[in-house]
Amino acid sequence: MAPAVLSTVATEVIIPVCAVVGIVFSLVQWYLVSKVKLTPGGGNNNNKNGYDDYLIEEEEGVNDHNVVVKCAEIQNAISEGATSFLFTEYQYVGIFMVVFAILIFVFLGSVEGFSTKSQRCTYDVTRMCKPALATAAFSTIAFLLGAITSIISGFLGMKIATYANARTTLEARKGVGKAFVTAFRSGAVMGFLLAANGLLVLYIAINLFKLYYGDDWEGLFEAITGYGLGGSSMALFGRVGGGIYTKAADVGADLVGKVERNIPEDDPRNPAVIADNVGDNVGDIAGMGSDLFGSYAESSCAALVVASISSFGIEHDFTAMCYPLLVSSIGILVCLITTLFATDFFEIKVVDEIQSALKKQLIISTFLMTIGVAIVSFIGLPTSFTIFNFGVQKVVHNWQLFLCVCVGLWAGLIIGFVTEYYTSNAYSPVQDVADSCRTGAATNVIFGLALGYKSVIIPIFAIAISIFVSFSFAAMYGIAVAALGMLSTIATGLAIDAYGPISDNAGGIAEMAGMSHRIRERTDALDAAGNTTAAIGKGFAIGSAALVSLALFGAFVSRAGIETVDVLTPKVFIGLIVGAMLPYWFSAMTMKSVGSAALKMVEEVRRQFNTIPGLMEGTAKPDYTTCVKISTDASIKEMIPPGALVMLTPLIVGTLFGVETLSGVLAGALVSGVQVAISASNTGGAWDNAKKYIEAGASEHARTLGPKGSEPHKAAVIGDTIGDPLKDTSGPSLNILIKLMAVESLVFAPFFAAHGGLLFKL
Amino acid sequence: MAPAVLSTVATEVIIPVCAVVGIVFSLVQWYLVSKVKLTPGGGNNNNKNGYDDYLIEEEEGVNDHNVVVKCAEIQNAISEGATSFLFTEYQYVGIFMVVFAILIFVFLGSVEGFSTKSQRCTYDVTRMCKPALATAAFSTIAFLLGAITSIISGFLGMKIATYANARTTLEARKGVGKAFVTAFRSGAVMGFLLAANGLLVLYIAINLFKLYYGDDWEGLFEAITGYGLGGSSMALFGRVGGGIYTKAADVGADLVGKVERNIPEDDPRNPAVIADNVGDNVGDIAGMGSDLFGSYAESSCAALVVASISSFGIEHDFTAMCYPLLVSSIGILVCLITTLFATDFFEIKVVDEIQSALKKQLIISTFLMTIGVAIVSFIGLPTSFTIFNFGVQKVVHNWQLFLCVCVGLWAGLIIGFVTEYYTSNAYSPVQDVADSCRTGAATNVIFGLALGYKSVIIPIFAIAISIFVSFSFAAMYGIAVAALGMLSTIATGLAIDAYGPISDNAGGIAEMAGMSHRIRERTDALDAAGNTTAAIGKGFAIGSAALVSLALFGAFVSRAGIETVDVLTPKVFIGLIVGAMLPYWFSAMTMKSVGSAALKMVEEVRRQFNTIPGLMEGTAKPDYTTCVKISTDASIKEMIPPGALVMLTPLIVGTLFGVETLSGVLAGALVSGVQVAISASNTGGAWDNAKKYIEAGASEHARTLGPKGSEPHKAAVIGDTIGDPLKDTSGPSLNILIKLMAVESLVFAPFFAAHGGLLFKL
Repeated sequence: MAPAVLSTVATEVIIPVCAVVGIVFSLVQWYLVSKVKLTPGGGNNNNKNGYDDYLIEEEEGVNDHNVVVKCAEIQNAISEGATSFLFTEYQYVGIFMVVFAILIFVFLGSVEGFSTKSQRCTYDVTRMCKPALATAAFSTIAFLLGAITSIISGFLGMKIATYANARTTLEARKGVGKAFVTAFRSGAVMGFLLAANGLLVLYIAINLFKLYYGDDWEGLFEAITGYGLGGSSMALFGRVGGGIYTKAADVGADLVGKVERNIPEDDPRNPAVIADNVGDNVGDIAGMGSDLFGSYAESSCAALVVASISSFGIEHDFTAMCYPLLVSSIGILVCLITTLFATDFFEIKVVDEIQSALKKQLIISTFLMTIGVAIVSFIGLPTSFTIFNFGVQKVVHNWQLFLCVCVGLWAGLIIGFVTEYYTSNAYSPVQDVADSCRTGAATNVIFGLALGYKSVIIPIFAIAISIFVSFSFAAMYGIAVAALGMLSTIATGLAIDAYGPISDNAGGIAEMAGMSHRIRERTDALDAAGNTTAAIGKGFAIGSAALVSLALFGAFVSRAGIETVDVLTPKVFIGLIVGAMLPYWFSAMTMKSVGSAALKMVEEVRRQFNTIPGLMEGTAKPDYTTCVKISTDASIKEMIPPGALVMLTPLIVGTLFGVETLSGVLAGALVSGVQVAISASNTGGAWDNAKKYIEAGASEHARTLGPKGSEPHKAAVIGDTIGDPLKDTSGPSLNILIKLMAVESLVFAPFFAAHGGLLFKL
Repeated sequence: MAPAVLSTVATEVIIPVCAVVGIVFSLVQWYLVSKVKLTPGGGNNNNKNGYDDYLIEEEEGVNDHNVVVKCAEIQNAISEGATSFLFTEYQYVGIFMVVFAILIFVFLGSVEGFSTKSQRCTYDVTRMCKPALATAAFSTIAFLLGAITSIISGFLGMKIATYANARTTLEARKGVGKAFVTAFRSGAVMGFLLAANGLLVLYIAINLFKLYYGDDWEGLFEAITGYGLGGSSMALFGRVGGGIYTKAADVGADLVGKVERNIPEDDPRNPAVIADNVGDNVGDIAGMGSDLFGSYAESSCAALVVASISSFGIEHDFTAMCYPLLVSSIGILVCLITTLFATDFFEIKVVDEIQSALKKQLIISTFLMTIGVAIVSFIGLPTSFTIFNFGVQKVVHNWQLFLCVCVGLWAGLIIGFVTEYYTSNAYSPVQDVADSCRTGAATNVIFGLALGYKSVIIPIFAIAISIFVSFSFAAMYGIAVAALGMLSTIATGLAIDAYGPISDNAGGIAEMAGMSHRIRERTDALDAAGNTTAAIGKGFAIGSAALVSLALFGAFVSRAGIETVDVLTPKVFIGLIVGAMLPYWFSAMTMKSVGSAALKMVEEVRRQFNTIPGLMEGTAKPDYTTCVKISTDASIKEMIPPGALVMLTPLIVGTLFGVETLSGVLAGALVSGVQVAISASNTGGAWDNAKKYIEAGASEHARTLGPKGSEPHKAAVIGDTIGDPLKDTSGPSLNILIKLMAVESLVFAPFFAAHGGLLFKL
């Protein structure tokens, strides 16, 4: 087997360089966003916004100092609320982190009775490997590293988003194109920071761990999987906590404001309005940032751990070993070029172009990445090599691995397009849902649920085909790199995804600052496109989660020493059916949490409207802080049970019932969770956009349903409210459920293999 | 191995005798119901109603001839509508039946190239068995037999229900106890007829087939599985067609009548009211009858086919072979005694006793059946024997088989109780849902969905434990008899289940005949209890479907010659994930169908209200026939795509992708479908009873939410409407989906094993 074209030294240089390029690029974007000044007087008139053209659309209020001051104030309130929530959340999560770190160390250390002696390797028993205690210690370190990186990712994302929201509002005064560029650039800051940061920390960790592990790559990469676990467990709390926060505030604000008091969305008189806008930043931004970072970390870890017991690891071929990291590195460069298409090469002039500009981002990045993957595959891999396949080594060629990555990449694009079709109000499915509002909320809900169910079909076929192709070519390694392929354009994906909530916030700020309708219309247009892209982002997250968990599942099964996971054995089958139930249990918890928290919020908002004189008239200010506190307390309290369900299930099942039942649980949760997650996200997205379709009244058909306040519109608002917890709490949390249980099982596999299945042993 | 205590001759006598006893008992019940006269003047005053007490509650209108005439008229209209729909449905289904029968013959005949020569047996290759062509011919006959029995079951059920509804209304004038007995007796007629008929036809078929097959029991029982397929495929069309019919009418009637025109439910001015009442009979009665008959037929076939290749079959021990039929026989006797507890031993005097009387039915039948199963197991089985377990023979003792049946039986009871807890408005879950209506329809829907998701947890654990216990004791045979155990009290289950729609209809007739509020209140109370029992019935149907399909799946895998169904092979995994998607695809189709049909109904009802002068004032009669026709046409047209999805999937997957992928599809559809089905049924049941809770206003809490027409009540009505297609169309159809795909795969297994997997062979 000929070695890869790329030398080890070149690999050692390329990966960190690409990561640094990503970080620098994101700083440049940040600098460009920061040129929009939030201090009155300065800046605005001199703002070149990164172009050489000066302000061309002078409008009412552009020079109104009061508006700028007000925007800055509101931004400040949102930023403070978000920061304070995240700090509270991190305190609780910090306790969990410490406890769980100890658990990892104790469980894994106990495998060989905390012995410090070297032991025979798991896969190649002729060689000696580092002691299990070392793996326990390094897994714990990797876990903490992953957790901290995830926290930083989410926190930075939130900071950037709250930095960008008011700036987007101010730019919206100059036109939709300017606002779009500001929002998208801010999204890109987050996307590139996360992708580059995740890669860099992982790369450094591998190199540092190597100082101890030396030639024992099997142990090294087994320990590295802790990084994925850390990333994903923080993501769980981020998604669930943030999801409950944002939807409690959103649903609570809407139920009293829009439905009872008939005041517009984001009206400053609504006491829950700040909490609502904080929620967008902690839920959709910080939560999603942690989530996608977790997926990225896990798919890298899954690929690395399988590679370490394949010929790459056995022959210590460092370049080939780093193939997953090389793919991610080239992904950063590809996304960099792609971003320029949105911000510099073309300019958006009218609202209709937004959606297609975002779609182009997906298409361009996928095309470029295909070329990038080809290059990496042909210079970074030997022409042929062997891959570990449940006990046997399977011969694989580099072009096959190229196809594995591509099938994931393209499946992602297909999932993206299908999601767009089912959630954008430019197509018939959402229009049908809007139309069903004629006969009231009930038919709206029936049609919306049916739409969500239907939207599952093609993504599942896309995932199934990716699995079949990549599995056939390169077993579990193929699936892991397919997942990486889907996530390789993560920087662009995150930029598109983060842009939505930023625009949503920008609209809120415009409303609260009392800016004109035209500004609000522009941010609404950005936001409507953002709803669709958010659904696309969730589609990617779920699709990649399915592939990642399967790869992790495969790695777990290998590590646990199981030969087959036979559905026809009772131990596996009961695992399968109980696993398939977990997404329902989890969704029941999170939806109920949102419901209860929203009820509390409703009571508080009603109380304020009833007891604060002059609030409805706008002469008195509402008490925003109490609402922020209600959301914070509720989400912290309510995130614990679902979090415990996910984190404890693998531990309990593995310890009591053993690895076969745990395999069943993982497979069941995977195949069932994917469906629930996709349908929940798309149903929610469709309802939201059906409502926006009626509100915008852009077509003859839409106008027969509107305007705001009509009976069909009221029915649409009900659907939108129901969709909120589905699309922003339960749905996106589910992909963490399936990934996290898989990575946790993998990390604890040595323990389960040694001491698991207590109940059957008795 | 000692032979069973029971001689072959005794077995040959006991089974048909029990079946005949069941039929006679149901005729007696029918006679008692028929004593309530629907012709004015006669009967009423002389009616002893099976008791020796004469009318004790003389009330207004008891002797009002006009009311009786009106009731008879309405009953006639409902009966005609239902009969005409079923005939139309059976015409289409008849065509399908013929086509599918040909398909079975051709596919199975082609296995050995239509050779008429004897061939080596599949499992015992040292012996010669009848030719594949014979199996093809007899499977086809068994299929037709099953289909016809299913049709007869559904049709008879409908006839009885439409015979009983007006009689229940008339009895309600005398008190809730009398009405209850009439409705329950009518349910019992259906329950016993179905159970006894299903058993008798199967028993006769086995004996007739034996005339040809002689000692080749392997071939005989392979052919008999066609009976299950026939029963289940008719059930599919019955459930889906009937489900769409009833909900299109119900939703359509409610949306215009209750919401727009503000007239009460079942008001005779509503043009869709007759269609709505017809729907109860063709959907809830005929559909459910076919469904449970299908489950019963399939679990018997699954047990028999496994037994035929176990020591029972190899040693030609007829009594042991007939163990599944003996369990069903004793079940009929047990249910007979149980029924007397409801109709004769105790008398219901107040509304509150209804729910507990029905619950007692479940408990009594389960206790008695436990004794019955013990007797059958110890006299009908050898003390030890071997059971076929994927290629090897496993030694099993009779007490183990007793436990297998019991675990299914008791799991059914647990599922029943959990379902009751989550759907009855006597407990906090439904009350919480009702309470959430305070903040509008959106929170009602969020809480309702969460309730449905949560209600899945315990039933799944119950199913998982049953599977584990019965699988561990007696492999796939254990699971098949556990399913039979759950279904052994089917006569009581059906009686309880059928009683609900009959009461619903009775209420409708009371309203339409212009009877007093007190009558309506009584039938409403019966109906509310019926909603819960309907949910319990669905719980049984789904739980048993899960066990049945697993048993069929196991039989399929054995017959197809697969050793393991390993999730870690790409062929199986893609099957698993696509299979888990099918319930969503199917639900999307059926829900959309209900939605579209309801929209058509809404238009027609609106048209009539707008164009027929005097309709709202009650001076002109609406055009009921057009509404009946809309429901009929819509359901016939819309049942084809979901029907095709279910029927074609196993054929396409088996032929193109082979048995491994098909195994994955079956397992995936099973573990995912169960969850969707349970949550859909319970969510729908909970919404319905939350609405009834508010309407009845029986507690302080309920009164703060009501009365009818209040905002919370309106929100509850929306939830109820959304729940309709979930609980009566999608949910209950899903258990047919999972069973039917499994039994179809089993019937076609010889073909798939010989010629399947074309795509991978190329």
